[in-house]
Amino acid sequence: MAIEIEQPRVGLSKVAVSKTHGEDSPYFAGWKAYDENPYHETSNQSGVIQMGLAENQVSFDLLEKYLEEHSEASSWGKGAPGFRENALFQDYHGLKSFRQAMASFMEQIRGGRAKFDPDRIVLTAGATAANELLTFILADPGDALLIPTPYYPGFDRDLRWRTGVNIVPIHCDSSNNFQITPEAMEAAYQSAESMNLKVRGILITNPSNPLGATIQRSALEQILDFAVNKNIHLVSDEIYSGSTFSSSEFISIAEILETRGYKDAERVHIVYSLSKDLGLPGFRVGTIYSYNDQVVTTARRMSSFTLISSQTQHLLACMLSNKEFSENYIKTNRERLSKRYDMIIKGLKKAGIECLKGNAGLFCWMNLSPLLEKPTRESELALWKVILNEVKLNISPGSSCHCSEPGWFRVCFANMSEQTLEIALERIRKFMEQRKRN
Amino acid sequence: MAIEIEQPRVGLSKVAVSKTHGEDSPYFAGWKAYDENPYHETSNQSGVIQMGLAENQVSFDLLEKYLEEHSEASSWGKGAPGFRENALFQDYHGLKSFRQAMASFMEQIRGGRAKFDPDRIVLTAGATAANELLTFILADPGDALLIPTPYYPGFDRDLRWRTGVNIVPIHCDSSNNFQITPEAMEAAYQSAESMNLKVRGILITNPSNPLGATIQRSALEQILDFAVNKNIHLVSDEIYSGSTFSSSEFISIAEILETRGYKDAERVHIVYSLSKDLGLPGFRVGTIYSYNDQVVTTARRMSSFTLISSQTQHLLACMLSNKEFSENYIKTNRERLSKRYDMIIKGLKKAGIECLKGNAGLFCWMNLSPLLEKPTRESELALWKVILNEVKLNISPGSSCHCSEPGWFRVCFANMSEQTLEIALERIRKFMEQRKRN
Repeated sequence: MAIEIEQPRVGLSKVAVSKTHGEDSPYFAGWKAYDENPYHETSNQSGVIQMGLAENQVSFDLLEKYLEEHSEASSWGKGAPGFRENALFQDYHGLKSFRQAMASFMEQIRGGRAKFDPDRIVLTAGATAANELLTFILADPGDALLIPTPYYPGFDRDLRWRTGVNIVPIHCDSSNNFQITPEAMEAAYQSAESMNLKVRGILITNPSNPLGATIQRSALEQILDFAVNKNIHLVSDEIYSGSTFSSSEFISIAEILETRGYKDAERVHIVYSLSKDLGLPGFRVGTIYSYNDQVVTTARRMSSFTLISSQTQHLLACMLSNKEFSENYIKTNRERLSKRYDMIIKGLKKAGIECLKGNAGLFCWMNLSPLLEKPTRESELALWKVILNEVKLNISPGSSCHCSEPGWFRVCFANMSEQTLEIALERIRKFMEQRKRN
Repeated sequence: MAIEIEQPRVGLSKVAVSKTHGEDSPYFAGWKAYDENPYHETSNQSGVIQMGLAENQVSFDLLEKYLEEHSEASSWGKGAPGFRENALFQDYHGLKSFRQAMASFMEQIRGGRAKFDPDRIVLTAGATAANELLTFILADPGDALLIPTPYYPGFDRDLRWRTGVNIVPIHCDSSNNFQITPEAMEAAYQSAESMNLKVRGILITNPSNPLGATIQRSALEQILDFAVNKNIHLVSDEIYSGSTFSSSEFISIAEILETRGYKDAERVHIVYSLSKDLGLPGFRVGTIYSYNDQVVTTARRMSSFTLISSQTQHLLACMLSNKEFSENYIKTNRERLSKRYDMIIKGLKKAGIECLKGNAGLFCWMNLSPLLEKPTRESELALWKVILNEVKLNISPGSSCHCSEPGWFRVCFANMSEQTLEIALERIRKFMEQRKRN
């Protein structure tokens, strides 16, 4: 930094000096290796291919086409109509037109099988903020949330860092395809109690990141029953709901509530975002949908710390309220993700690698446990380093997702071109052949 | 809300049920009265005129003109150049072009008398988030920040609600035009110690909201010396720095540091925003400029919870890096605010009302203490209610800003047309005449 300043003495808070932001995990370390030597199809063909980034780039052309044909959505143009009102709009309710468009988009994604009330939508600058905000509202410092493993490594930062809340893992494993069972939930609950932690809620990700699979109806019923029996909250993070390969395969917790006549709904809160399904992480659009009136009111007040630019609300209100666009987008995006998924699964199979059967998301859950020297976290990380430094692929080790079974890796496939994916698959194939020979 | 849901049993956190969000203060109550019966020049001439909102509408035409002439800043247009990269950009460093433009804009506002390094700029979704974020970094729950009174009522929410930090007031009064003195700072420090609170910093607002005045160089020197002697942090909220009526009258803490060769700079942190000076609160653009490397690193990580839309970063990077625009804007905006200020001060004087001599901001600090029945908070609020319900003006009572001297009110003048301001002044004049007669 340009101005040199002595940096001594004055102290910072415990939050500032704590390591609960998780940036020293392999999940983030892999990004660094990629940043230092990124693959490029012409200028750096031996660089690292980034497969650790759950970004959706497969449907950008649809967004671009919309923007070309609808300049009113993004441009203030001649006379700048509406600019003043928009630039001044900072009401924490958010633009009504945008909340309506979001509610409608969430209904479309669920094939109309669940209804969403725009007045229950609270807007936040991304799902990161939505999850933290809900944690602040549902749990006190020192309390616990139960989360099924493997889970998104960012939760360690988002749910814990500033809130002081603990995460207690619900251990799932490959014996039943990582499904969440009543026994596993009860074991986690008991484990929390034995540590004298008060359990305030359970947080599920459906479809799951990193599994790339949806949660079955029977499991959702059991999870809701568990939350009711323990008198705790249920947060359902559904940010990949529009990235399920077929509309019918995703069941939202909202549908379970609808079939139960909204009994016990007051403990259920849904997190959504446009970062994954629409591929717009830079625009920072997240939302909390809560069935609890007090949570809605409090979350809205708290969203003052994390509001969405009204310029961006305006653009997305126009885009999503255009039914022709949104219906075509959802359908086409699903088809393209499904095609990509088939491509990677087949490629990996050809290389002799099995994956968990998936039906959603921007990644697959790859089983390299046969390659481990020992069934340990250390062996997993050793293999991960070989793949990063020699095969030049940045994938995410399951241990960074708190997976209790070593040897699983998350591999992203939607943040690159098909050509680049082919090259990545070819690198894996060669690596596997080499291993066989040695 | 449309779906009726039973709302029983399941508990929320202490943060959720606490009242430290401050929304029951008169500051917010006045807004409600305005919302229910807003003045309109043709359709509701007897409605409430909103003078409780520090919004800058006097220079919108300059922004609109820029947008008309520079469609590349806001529109993705044909071929949507750069849209993909922008939509995907979620790096918590923020767009480099935008950080450079912000640093340069902050230098221009200070007449080039202070330099800002773009690498020390941390972006947040508004100053609300910036202030909270700094509090999380500088103080632990139960610790205290010292703040001179009167202060912005939102601080009670922003600095306390989720952080659990306390505010200890430094009491200033009209005997020395509400200047901050070493004695007042020491008294506040002692008061905190007597309550067993650990003081972690002092937060000043320069120019002051609600005073509408800048802090003098000698006072700034004393404040920095105080922070050094007590080994605490100094946060300088300078969100009205571009709204000082003349460039030379505002002295930033950055200038004091520059003259001291950045000695003791590691304890100084500046908050800035485009909501006031550029009149864009809806776009949610705040920033922390810290001279402390660890604060910069930590704040940047923490800004993940409150990032600015990359679409908005792009627009403002274009706008602010255009020197012709930014220089003209700063100059013209200062002139117009100064003119408005003269207009309201003269109008109030004609009605027999004195104000603190101001030189900055979107409001003046009006002394109605001669009108109080008794010199108490109750009398002040009684008068406030008369002004709100009978004179139909929403102004902010000093007690909501924790002013220890009853009878002062903040009156905003930049969120309306000159015509509306004339009508407001006429209402005040009539009210004062009536009071004299009774």
